Amino acid sequence: MVTPLKDNNTLDIKGLESLIEYIISGGVHGLFILGTTGEGTNLRFELRYDLIQRVCLQVSKRVPVLVGITDTSLAESIKMAEKAAKYGADAVVSSPPYYFKLCQSELVGYYNDLANRLPLPLFLYNMPEHTKVYFEPETVREIAKNNRVIGLKDSSGNSVYFQTLIHAMKDNLKFSLLVGPDIITAESVLLGGHGGVNGGANLFPRLYVDMYKAAVTRDFNRLVPIQEKIRQLWYSIYFVIKSSSCHLTGIKCALSLMKICNDFVASPFHKLNEKEKATILQFLEELDYKNLM
Amino acid sequence: MVTPLKDNNTLDIKGLESLIEYIISGGVHGLFILGTTGEGTNLRFELRYDLIQRVCLQVSKRVPVLVGITDTSLAESIKMAEKAAKYGADAVVSSPPYYFKLCQSELVGYYNDLANRLPLPLFLYNMPEHTKVYFEPETVREIAKNNRVIGLKDSSGNSVYFQTLIHAMKDNLKFSLLVGPDIITAESVLLGGHGGVNGGANLFPRLYVDMYKAAVTRDFNRLVPIQEKIRQLWYSIYFVIKSSSCHLTGIKCALSLMKICNDFVASPFHKLNEKEKATILQFLEELDYKNLM
Amino acid sequence: MVTPLKDNNTLDIKGLESLIEYIISGGVHGLFILGTTGEGTNLRFELRYDLIQRVCLQVSKRVPVLVGITDTSLAESIKMAEKAAKYGADAVVSSPPYYFKLCQSELVGYYNDLANRLPLPLFLYNMPEHTKVYFEPETVREIAKNNRVIGLKDSSGNSVYFQTLIHAMKDNLKFSLLVGPDIITAESVLLGGHGGVNGGANLFPRLYVDMYKAAVTRDFNRLVPIQEKIRQLWYSIYFVIKSSSCHLTGIKCALSLMKICNDFVASPFHKLNEKEKATILQFLEELDYKNLM
Amino acid sequence: MVTPLKDNNTLDIKGLESLIEYIISGGVHGLFILGTTGEGTNLRFELRYDLIQRVCLQVSKRVPVLVGITDTSLAESIKMAEKAAKYGADAVVSSPPYYFKLCQSELVGYYNDLANRLPLPLFLYNMPEHTKVYFEPETVREIAKNNRVIGLKDSSGNSVYFQTLIHAMKDNLKFSLLVGPDIITAESVLLGGHGGVNGGANLFPRLYVDMYKAAVTRDFNRLVPIQEKIRQLWYSIYFVIKSSSCHLTGIKCALSLMKICNDFVASPFHKLNEKEKATILQFLEELDYKNLM
Repeated sequence: MVTPLKDNNTLDIKGLESLIEYIISGGVHGLFILGTTGEGTNLRFELRYDLIQRVCLQVSKRVPVLVGITDTSLAESIKMAEKAAKYGADAVVSSPPYYFKLCQSELVGYYNDLANRLPLPLFLYNMPEHTKVYFEPETVREIAKNNRVIGLKDSSGNSVYFQTLIHAMKDNLKFSLLVGPDIITAESVLLGGHGGVNGGANLFPRLYVDMYKAAVTRDFNRLVPIQEKIRQLWYSIYFVIKSSSCHLTGIKCALSLMKICNDFVASPFHKLNEKEKATILQFLEELDYKNLM
Repeated sequence: MVTPLKDNNTLDIKGLESLIEYIISGGVHGLFILGTTGEGTNLRFELRYDLIQRVCLQVSKRVPVLVGITDTSLAESIKMAEKAAKYGADAVVSSPPYYFKLCQSELVGYYNDLANRLPLPLFLYNMPEHTKVYFEPETVREIAKNNRVIGLKDSSGNSVYFQTLIHAMKDNLKFSLLVGPDIITAESVLLGGHGGVNGGANLFPRLYVDMYKAAVTRDFNRLVPIQEKIRQLWYSIYFVIKSSSCHLTGIKCALSLMKICNDFVASPFHKLNEKEKATILQFLEELDYKNLM
Repeated sequence: MVTPLKDNNTLDIKGLESLIEYIISGGVHGLFILGTTGEGTNLRFELRYDLIQRVCLQVSKRVPVLVGITDTSLAESIKMAEKAAKYGADAVVSSPPYYFKLCQSELVGYYNDLANRLPLPLFLYNMPEHTKVYFEPETVREIAKNNRVIGLKDSSGNSVYFQTLIHAMKDNLKFSLLVGPDIITAESVLLGGHGGVNGGANLFPRLYVDMYKAAVTRDFNRLVPIQEKIRQLWYSIYFVIKSSSCHLTGIKCALSLMKICNDFVASPFHKLNEKEKATILQFLEELDYKNLM
Repeated sequence: MVTPLKDNNTLDIKGLESLIEYIISGGVHGLFILGTTGEGTNLRFELRYDLIQRVCLQVSKRVPVLVGITDTSLAESIKMAEKAAKYGADAVVSSPPYYFKLCQSELVGYYNDLANRLPLPLFLYNMPEHTKVYFEPETVREIAKNNRVIGLKDSSGNSVYFQTLIHAMKDNLKFSLLVGPDIITAESVLLGGHGGVNGGANLFPRLYVDMYKAAVTRDFNRLVPIQEKIRQLWYSIYFVIKSSSCHLTGIKCALSLMKICNDFVASPFHKLNEKEKATILQFLEELDYKNLM
């Protein structure tokens, strides 16, 4: 879930409420806040705590809430997890400390330290573009021996890696393997993945829920046109600017055009300008977006 | 197809014949020689020419033969293509010149130069691990305006990229999109890819042909156990040593254990040692390899 | 300066005092705390604030104190800068937000936002290994138009880049260009650099001050043997383990052997074990370390 | 030395003669042909052989000639070395096979294979931007046990690496350590390097010879203004276009403006267009180039 903002230090509270209701109404099976698309690392901690509390309160257990606690300081990650537990979240999600590049044995050590101090179950978050390191399959096996670690979200886009993970974890039936990029969730679910954590579900939650259902039931008549829509969305709305923020700025801009929440993007990024906004509107219309809402 | 060798400068001719017959008997739809797994770039040119001639002669049009012509010199690539045409090959395959890293406009310029001088149709070969550059989707669209360019093999393992390519090329119905890594061919074919060029088909051609057929017909009862086998093979035989040659040295070792051809690997790499060979044999037995041949 | 710790959440206060006095007694021209070697990003904020206060108090303006404020959240960086100003520090140092990779225009935007809200002058900190991005010379020129930005520390090790920076900034006589890696500070100072921010000065501050003085005065009779010592130190103490923490763990281990402060290293890293410690001791003896203190 | 060309397959023979005489008249201590700036990897082999013969003939032992033999095929590298020996060259230069990324033990194995089959002494060529791998200092020590390996040219631009190499090789007094990038040759020579192999010496050989002499004799009154000139040249002529060929296209364009040789650049690159050429001319004038010739 994106984090609706008015400025760097202020939540867009009305937008937040609208967005939560909109997403839940689409039938999603859970909410992940403060991830990459949620700008987790870019927000001050007090705002993150406030967000966790507000989301948990409004969701009120209708679906599980997962909270990103990624930080370079172990102590700050634990503190966020404690807030998450206090406010009623269901699990936490962590990618490796991302200033220094860690080696595999350091990942094992770090996640042992972390998992044992957490009040909630933990999902690993593989995000090598940002953290410079993969959780190698053997490392996941090792970390997952701790039964507080219940799954992994892979945002690498590397399906070779994901298929290898499926093999490595095939005897651990309780471990969830989820995929990040929208555009490959269907194929992952068709061949062994358990689901997706997709940024595009901010915009069209029903579309992504339908994609998941069609993939799980191997209903290609439904799946193929949905996948075409998702490819079209990916290829258009996500790449309007040249920036590592292009996905999230595109999504926020579209959400504001759809009157759901504000399009402010926190520093070091910026919301789209008027010309780029016009491009997003055109892409939305090409997607026939009103029928997807 | 791997290139059976006796030493750096000598083909294993008997092994080559056995390997070709073995692969064709498995039902493959074509042969790709002198690619990455074929050690194309590591062999002297005279040996490459000799290989092209021998393969074309023995295949005798039973299946199409595709020839890797990747080189850093345009003139040498064209010369290889001319040999390929002369000996009766069906198409050529080229990844970008790989010493300097090219930018997208340089890729367009290079492939325009190349395609217009080729006596055979051309497949692009996306191999960023080795060439340092992706063919971006817009670049593929641009290059494919030349109708001598008939397809692309993607060996990046990046399924996000591949799905984006499918979208970008959706109106060019004659353009083939093939996938390299064995372990993701099935999911690619399930959602829009046209086939695979899989190193593992040297070992078990029937298994990969069956995988393709099951994926194309969406026959999950057959596909799921095949995909599990392919994962197991990938996770075992391909990673016995730490080297960028680990796939090909593993395949060549297994082929020699299966009495199909020699396991010599050209400089700068080396064949597996006795201990590693024993590991490969154990993996083959765990795969119940005799039933896969 | 390294951050002496007893555990993840506790400063080694006695060690901190010893270390500060030891370094200042070596004649250094300033102290930089909470940088990469200072484990800034790995410590909880309250501990960072406490450290800033204690260092400023003890230094008592004998030399300038520079404080690392690098964080992925603009608001948290500003808050640290405000603490630094409140406690009497002289300047702050910032490398770019390091989760998302920024492009050059985003660097300009971010540093404009930051510099205008800072109560202290700012040094840029070029650390591409950790932040994934260089400050390109034109970007530095653009950012340095804001006269609150007074210098740049380059830790890339890339002297081509550093020489290009010197050229780009040649008309801005007030802008300081400092070098990170110990082993290239001398050559940088010989050809246009203004000084070094060297981790090794935790161990042997006098050696590094002498190196700087010999380089500035072009006294090669003194400089050559000092540079040989610095190469020997680099090649030994900094690479005892395979980890991106190898410099700082080596330095902390040596400091503990020299009875200056504790060797604890914060999560996700670990202090050296007994065997590695013995290696460090041997290296110290080969350096004739007692004569360097 | 750049390779003067009329087109992809034709040497600019008159330009070649002029260039050789011009460079030698500047006082250089040797010529390196078929390196990166010499477009070695981009030319067909017959043209490379022809170039070797012509250069050796014209130089006629006035200075040593070093020949780049870098290729992905060991056999083709050896064949080039044999041509070089036959035509009277003095040494060969090799960077690692550059399609697959090699590991350190593979580098050792490859260079043992190569060195023992060469008719001429060998320089290693560290060029990680193009080959994806560094020669680690311990690897250089190991390879240099073979006394046919007489030196290393480092084009990484990473002075930390170069200083570490100096330390690693300090007991091998016969091993030459040379630096590639023009802009850091002076500082390398000031602190232990033995010389430079500088692309800019195609343009202004006397300037680079003077830089070397001033650095070796530590004559800063002469060195500082020369280094400023070299920085200015680097910052202007080398970066007119965005391409990994920008150095060599800039040099060739300037050489044609100086009436020394043709500006054709081999595929996959292109010579500068008229507008870019005008920019180069302006830069040359800002350098007061006629006084540097």
